[in-house]
Amino acid sequence: MITRAEYESIRQRAADLLAQTGVVVTADELERMEVADFGLSEIEISGAQILTLVDNEKIAAKLLVMLPDQTEPEHMHPAIGDYAGKHETVRCEWGELYLYGPGEATPNPQGKPPAHRLDTYTVWREYILRPGDQVTFLPGSPHWFQGGPQGAVIWSFSTKATDIQDVFTDPNIQRQTVIVDS
Amino acid sequence: MITRAEYESIRQRAADLLAQTGVVVTADELERMEVADFGLSEIEISGAQILTLVDNEKIAAKLLVMLPDQTEPEHMHPAIGDYAGKHETVRCEWGELYLYGPGEATPNPQGKPPAHRLDTYTVWREYILRPGDQVTFLPGSPHWFQGGPQGAVIWSFSTKATDIQDVFTDPNIQRQTVIVDS
Repeated sequence: MITRAEYESIRQRAADLLAQTGVVVTADELERMEVADFGLSEIEISGAQILTLVDNEKIAAKLLVMLPDQTEPEHMHPAIGDYAGKHETVRCEWGELYLYGPGEATPNPQGKPPAHRLDTYTVWREYILRPGDQVTFLPGSPHWFQGGPQGAVIWSFSTKATDIQDVFTDPNIQRQTVIVDS
Repeated sequence: MITRAEYESIRQRAADLLAQTGVVVTADELERMEVADFGLSEIEISGAQILTLVDNEKIAAKLLVMLPDQTEPEHMHPAIGDYAGKHETVRCEWGELYLYGPGEATPNPQGKPPAHRLDTYTVWREYILRPGDQVTFLPGSPHWFQGGPQGAVIWSFSTKATDIQDVFTDPNIQRQTVIVDS
């Protein structure tokens, strides 16, 4: 959980990073930006700020803001009924992103997941994304990422988003963030 | 058809408009930007410049650059076999776009399609898109659009693109642009 004050402070920091890019977002969109702590109650370590531009039955387009060194925990997008699962392209717009997926582990990776959760990070093929770089993940393919020293702003272009049904490697994760008033 | 020199000159103008936005594109992507004249050989009147960022079996993300007063002719995205057809959100990033789709005709629309092709424009419900505004079109829904006085840069977020199979109202249209060397 996060407090309302934390939520507002993190949202403002994310809005400031977003303003470093030239991508236009509306005041309403900014207002709706999600601050996700994944139920781990350590938002500056494990979390992501998610601004959804398009979200319908077919596709989603989102901007994700990662604070410096903040990690979005390892997860994958499962098949759900007739839906093959979210097929996602992650593209860097600003800053630097350390991104990890299946494949041969990269020696000496740049990304450092939270030490106390290291056993919940299992894929170590590294992609270092700078502005204009992108990687596509197929449904069911685990991945995680971390903002670089300045943070990062990234695009997620995908088929239908099913965030609440994402499968996280860490069993302690609750996808819905609880915001408390004090 | 367009000449190689025209193609290069239009591509440069489109790149200059794109540079007005803060959206990052790579030199390779710029190099691959499509200048589409829809076979009408009047690129500054009927055409679009299309920069594809993501294009796979599931989704597409494109930036379209419209020159001032340039019109993308009326078209729709048909169902193809098992595929329901392209489901597309058009979002303005820069400039102003006059966009038209099905529904009650807007009196005194801002957009003026090429007078000599007026009978190939049949939908007149107007949406004036400024940065951050967006509209979604379902498969099979005809639409056309025109860059405003300064032109426009717009996003197209969609399910799988099937450009070559798009159905244009104007029977003279050939979707593939022919570039000639002189």
